[in-house]
Amino acid sequence: MRSFEVKNRTSVDAIKSLRLITAVKTPYLPDGRFDLEAYDSLMNMQIAGGVEGVIVGGTTGEGHLMSWDEHIMLIGHTVNCFGTSIKVIGNTGSNSTREAIHASEQGFAVGMHAALHINPYYGKTSMQGLVSHFDSVLPMGPTIIYNVPCRTGQDIPPPVIHAISQDPNFAGVKECVGNERIKGYVDGGITIWSGNDDECHESRWRYGATGVISVTSNLVPGLMRALMFQGADPGLNSKLMPLIEWLFHEPNPIGLNTALAQLGVVRPIFRKPYSPLPLEKRLEFVNIVKAIGREHFVGEKDVQALEDEEFICLDRY
Amino acid sequence: MRSFEVKNRTSVDAIKSLRLITAVKTPYLPDGRFDLEAYDSLMNMQIAGGVEGVIVGGTTGEGHLMSWDEHIMLIGHTVNCFGTSIKVIGNTGSNSTREAIHASEQGFAVGMHAALHINPYYGKTSMQGLVSHFDSVLPMGPTIIYNVPCRTGQDIPPPVIHAISQDPNFAGVKECVGNERIKGYVDGGITIWSGNDDECHESRWRYGATGVISVTSNLVPGLMRALMFQGADPGLNSKLMPLIEWLFHEPNPIGLNTALAQLGVVRPIFRKPYSPLPLEKRLEFVNIVKAIGREHFVGEKDVQALEDEEFICLDRY
Amino acid sequence: MRSFEVKNRTSVDAIKSLRLITAVKTPYLPDGRFDLEAYDSLMNMQIAGGVEGVIVGGTTGEGHLMSWDEHIMLIGHTVNCFGTSIKVIGNTGSNSTREAIHASEQGFAVGMHAALHINPYYGKTSMQGLVSHFDSVLPMGPTIIYNVPCRTGQDIPPPVIHAISQDPNFAGVKECVGNERIKGYVDGGITIWSGNDDECHESRWRYGATGVISVTSNLVPGLMRALMFQGADPGLNSKLMPLIEWLFHEPNPIGLNTALAQLGVVRPIFRKPYSPLPLEKRLEFVNIVKAIGREHFVGEKDVQALEDEEFICLDRY
Amino acid sequence: MRSFEVKNRTSVDAIKSLRLITAVKTPYLPDGRFDLEAYDSLMNMQIAGGVEGVIVGGTTGEGHLMSWDEHIMLIGHTVNCFGTSIKVIGNTGSNSTREAIHASEQGFAVGMHAALHINPYYGKTSMQGLVSHFDSVLPMGPTIIYNVPCRTGQDIPPPVIHAISQDPNFAGVKECVGNERIKGYVDGGITIWSGNDDECHESRWRYGATGVISVTSNLVPGLMRALMFQGADPGLNSKLMPLIEWLFHEPNPIGLNTALAQLGVVRPIFRKPYSPLPLEKRLEFVNIVKAIGREHFVGEKDVQALEDEEFICLDRY
Repeated sequence: MRSFEVKNRTSVDAIKSLRLITAVKTPYLPDGRFDLEAYDSLMNMQIAGGVEGVIVGGTTGEGHLMSWDEHIMLIGHTVNCFGTSIKVIGNTGSNSTREAIHASEQGFAVGMHAALHINPYYGKTSMQGLVSHFDSVLPMGPTIIYNVPCRTGQDIPPPVIHAISQDPNFAGVKECVGNERIKGYVDGGITIWSGNDDECHESRWRYGATGVISVTSNLVPGLMRALMFQGADPGLNSKLMPLIEWLFHEPNPIGLNTALAQLGVVRPIFRKPYSPLPLEKRLEFVNIVKAIGREHFVGEKDVQALEDEEFICLDRY
Repeated sequence: MRSFEVKNRTSVDAIKSLRLITAVKTPYLPDGRFDLEAYDSLMNMQIAGGVEGVIVGGTTGEGHLMSWDEHIMLIGHTVNCFGTSIKVIGNTGSNSTREAIHASEQGFAVGMHAALHINPYYGKTSMQGLVSHFDSVLPMGPTIIYNVPCRTGQDIPPPVIHAISQDPNFAGVKECVGNERIKGYVDGGITIWSGNDDECHESRWRYGATGVISVTSNLVPGLMRALMFQGADPGLNSKLMPLIEWLFHEPNPIGLNTALAQLGVVRPIFRKPYSPLPLEKRLEFVNIVKAIGREHFVGEKDVQALEDEEFICLDRY
Repeated sequence: MRSFEVKNRTSVDAIKSLRLITAVKTPYLPDGRFDLEAYDSLMNMQIAGGVEGVIVGGTTGEGHLMSWDEHIMLIGHTVNCFGTSIKVIGNTGSNSTREAIHASEQGFAVGMHAALHINPYYGKTSMQGLVSHFDSVLPMGPTIIYNVPCRTGQDIPPPVIHAISQDPNFAGVKECVGNERIKGYVDGGITIWSGNDDECHESRWRYGATGVISVTSNLVPGLMRALMFQGADPGLNSKLMPLIEWLFHEPNPIGLNTALAQLGVVRPIFRKPYSPLPLEKRLEFVNIVKAIGREHFVGEKDVQALEDEEFICLDRY
Repeated sequence: MRSFEVKNRTSVDAIKSLRLITAVKTPYLPDGRFDLEAYDSLMNMQIAGGVEGVIVGGTTGEGHLMSWDEHIMLIGHTVNCFGTSIKVIGNTGSNSTREAIHASEQGFAVGMHAALHINPYYGKTSMQGLVSHFDSVLPMGPTIIYNVPCRTGQDIPPPVIHAISQDPNFAGVKECVGNERIKGYVDGGITIWSGNDDECHESRWRYGATGVISVTSNLVPGLMRALMFQGADPGLNSKLMPLIEWLFHEPNPIGLNTALAQLGVVRPIFRKPYSPLPLEKRLEFVNIVKAIGREHFVGEKDVQALEDEEFICLDRY
C-alpha cells in the first residue's frame, strides 16, 4: 500500500539531521475530543521556537489513549497544516505487530515523514521476535527506534539494533538507557537522540548524540533549541534542571499536562489514567516559571496555580 | 474539534463553482488493501484530464466497503498528495448521525475541502429527522447533499433542502431525481450537480445545473470536461451514451471496476459484494473503446477482454 | 472459526418452526449507551407474552446505529441471559460482505441461534453478486434472508432465493414485498415470515406464511401471539390495525421508540437520526392504548403523552 | 449499562475461593483468526483436569494482540459454552481507562464472572492515578488486580491495593513480586494468587496464597491441580520445575505456544511479535514430556519436535 508521490517522501538523511524534536502534547476539549485549535497553536509555538520535528501521539502525546483513527487523523492533520515547516514523525509503534504495520502504512499514506517504533511493551518477545517485529515495519519509510525499558519492561539490546541498522530506512535510535549506551552506538556510526531531557546536554555535547526528542521543549522550545544548537552550555543546562526535575517527578506527561494548563496554553483536561499534579507542586511550577522567565515559556497568559476544581479528568470520551 | 489553519479552508463559493467532479474509483491490491500506486496514477489522470474535484470513498469509490480508518486515511492521502491541484470532497456521510459527525470532523481535520452527505439510507427517518441529521454535520465545513432515492430508499424532498439551504456551509445538491427537480432548485438559486451521467448534458445546458459528479469521467475525463465546459454538444453527448449505458447496466461501480481493469489502469480485484461483468459485456466494452477512441480513455495499455480467471473477488480483507 | 460445542447449535428446523419473532427495541441510557436493565425487562416481557424468538440489532433495534462491538455484545448478552427461553437471531447482515462474514462468525461464536441477512443495501450489486454474498455467510449457521426493497433500494427476486434455498443452513425469508410473492415461495416449499405487521394475518392464514417478524409485538406480545397461533381472527386483526398504522406512520422505529417511552418501558432517549413523534401523534397513541386495553401492552405504568422536553436526541454517544 | 439478570452474577466470595486458574492459550487458524475448535478442546481439557477458572485474553492468551471485538467475543463464547463448568475471568484491563471501562462493561454484559485488571502499563501514572483507574472499573463486578512490574514498568505498591481493597467487588491480587509481598497481603486478609508458576507451591503452602493463576496448567492441569489442592508436595514441585523453567526461558507465551503445538493440541501458528522456540529447545521439551510422563500432558498425540518450516508467524491477520 505504498505511495510514491513526491510529497510523501523525506530522505532518511533529512531525519538523521534533526537535532530538536518535540514529543508534542495532545490537548483536549471538555468532552475528551482533541482540541485542534489549542494543538495548532502549540504547533505554531514549536515552529516559532525553532523545533525541527514533532512526535505525534508519542507517550507524551498519549497515543496509547487514542483510538487508531484518532491517531492517524492527528498525524494527517499535522502533515497537512504544518508539514512544510516541520518534520512530522508519527508514533505508529505498537506491541502488536499487526497494529504497528497497519498504523505505519496509514501514517505514511497521509504523509508523515518518519515513524517512531517501540519494541513490544508489556507483551514482550524474544530477541528474534524483536528483530522480526522491526523488520515488518522498516520497509515502509524512515524509522526511528525507541528504547525505554522503564516503560516497556524490556531493553532493546545493541545486537538487535545492529541487526536492523543496515536497513536503508533505519534512521536511528531514541535511547533512554544512558550515555554509555549512547556512546557505543555513536562510535558505531548510529544516529542517536537522547530520550531523557535531564541527560540530553551531556549526550549531545559529550557523547555524540545528534539531538534530543524532548518533553521539555513543549514548554521552552527556544531554550531547548539553544541547548542543542549553540554548543555546550552547562549554565543553561543547570538553569533548566529544576524544570526538568519537576516535569518528571511523576510519570510523564502528568507534569507536562499540568504545566501547559497552568500556562493557559491548553485546557485543564486530562484523559485518565492521568490526573494533575497537586496544588503544592503547581505552586512550585509557578516559581520555576518565574525563575527561568515567563518569556521563555510558550503562551502569553500569566502562569497560574489553578484550583483543583478547575481540572477535569475523563474516563469516558 | 475545529482547526482554523489556513490550509484547511476552502470557501463554499469555490466548491459551488466546480463543474466536473469525479466520483473516483478505489483500486485494490490482491489482499484487498488499497493500491495507492494505482490510485495516485488514476488521480493524476483525472487532474491531467481537467477534472476539478473528486469524491473520495463515494458509492463509486466503495466507501461502504471501507473501515472508517481506511476511509479517512484515503481522504488525508488525497489531500496531502493532490490537494493543491484538485478539490478533495470526502464522502463522510452515513446513515448513523454519530458516524457522519465523527467522520466529517476527521475528514476536515485532515484537510478535505468539502463533505458529501447522504440522507440516512436503509434506516431512514422522518422529515424532521432528516433536517436534524444535516444540521448536525453542516457546521463542520462546506457540504454537498446527495439525493439518490434508488439507493437510499427515501427521497430528500425540496422542503428539506430549503430548510438547510440557508446554512453558510451548504454548497448544493448532487441530485439524481431528474431534470424537473433540478430546474426547481436552480430557479430557487440552489447549486446543483447532476448525479446521472446520462442526463448531465441536459441538466447542465438546459436546466441550469452547475455541473456533474460523474462516474464516466473516471474513464474519459477529457471528454466529460468538454461536455461540461464547451457548451451544449449533443453530438458528443450521443457519442458517449453507449459507454454510459454500458456502465450502468448493473449497479455502479460494477461496470466501472470492470472497465478500469480492462484498460489496465487497476488490477482486476473486487471487494465483494461486487463481481465483474461477464465476458459478453467485457467484449462490448472493447468495442465501445474502439468506437470512441482509445486515446480518449485513461491509461496507455491496450484494452483487453480479460479472462474470467484473471478476476479476484475478495470477501475477507 | 467454527465452534461445535453443543450449546451453540440450533437446528434449522427449530428456526423454521418459529411463528412469532420480535424485532426487539434497543433502549438507551441518557449518554447513549445501552440500557441493559430496560432491555432485560423488555426481553422478559416478550418471553412472558409468548414470543418465540428475537431479532437483535435489526432495523427496529437500530443495529445500523451500533458499532459492531456493541452489536455482538448485545447478541452475546441476550444469548447468555435468555437463550434457553427464546431463540436469539442476530442481525449480522451488512452491505459489506466482509462485515457480514465477520459479524456472523462472531455472532455464532457467542451463541446466537440464527443470523438474519439483508442484501447489500445502498451499495447494491448484481444478481450474481447477491448470490455470492449470501453464499459467503450461509456456511456459518441457520440463516434467514431479509427482503425489504423500500429500505435497501433493491429487491431480492425469487431466482436469487431459489439459488440459495438448497443450502442446509437456509431457514427461510422475511419477506416484505407482499402476499403474492409470499404465496409463490410457500408453494415452492420455502418458509416465510411476514415482515409487514399490517399484512401478517393474511400472510399467515391465507397465504401460508409460517409467522411474522414483528415490530408490534414489542408492545402487545400476547395479542400478536394470539394472532399467529389461534387461527384466523379478523376481529383481532382489525382491532390491532389502528395501532399498526400509527406505528408505521413514520419510518420504523420512530413510532415504536415513542410508544415504549410513553408506556414507561424505556427512557425517552433517541439516537439520531431518529426523533420522537410530535405531541399530536403521542396523544393519538394514548387513545389507541385505551381502545385496545392497557393490560395488553407491555409495562405497568400509565401511558403518558410526555412533554417534548422530556425527550433526548443524541448525536454523539 | 449493568444487567441484573441472575446468570450474570457470581459472588466475589466464589471468585476468592478459586485455587487453580489457567491463563488459557488462544489458538489460531492459518489466517490468524481464532481456532475455536482447538480452543474448545483445550477448554474441555482444562475442565477435565480440575481447573476452576480461566483468564481469557490475558498476556498468555495474547489479549494485547486481539482487537477488542475479538476479545469480547472470546469471553462471550467461553461463557456460553463453558460458563456453567468453570469460572470465566476476562482480562478486560488496559493502560487506557476508557478502554478498561468499555471492555469491562461489555465483558460483564456477555456474562463473564470476574475481570482481571492490570495497572496502566507503558503509559504509567501516579499513585493517585492508579487508584482512580481502578476505582473506575471496580463498580462493574468482581475484580482481580494484576501486578507484574516486569511487564508494566511500574509496581502496584501495597498502599494502592489497600486503598481499593474495601470495594465490595475487590476479589484479590494476582501478585508476581514475590512471597514477601504476598505474605504481607495475606496477613492483612487480602486474597492472593501467585502469578509465578515457579513460586506458587511456596506461595500457597508457606505464605498463604489462595492459589495460582497459572501458565503451566495449560499443559498439565491435573498436576497443577494436585500441587494446589493436595497439601505441600515438594517432590511434585521439583518434578515440575524443569518444565516451568523451560516455559519461561523466553517471555511467555513463547514457550507455551511452542509446547502446545508440539503436543498437537494447537496448530503451529503464531501472531507476531511471537515466534517459536528454536529446534534445540523444542528437543528439550520432548525430553521434559518424557520425564514427567506424556499422560500428564494435554492432548493425545505423540509429542513432536516439529520442523522449523511447520511454523507460521503472521504479521497481517
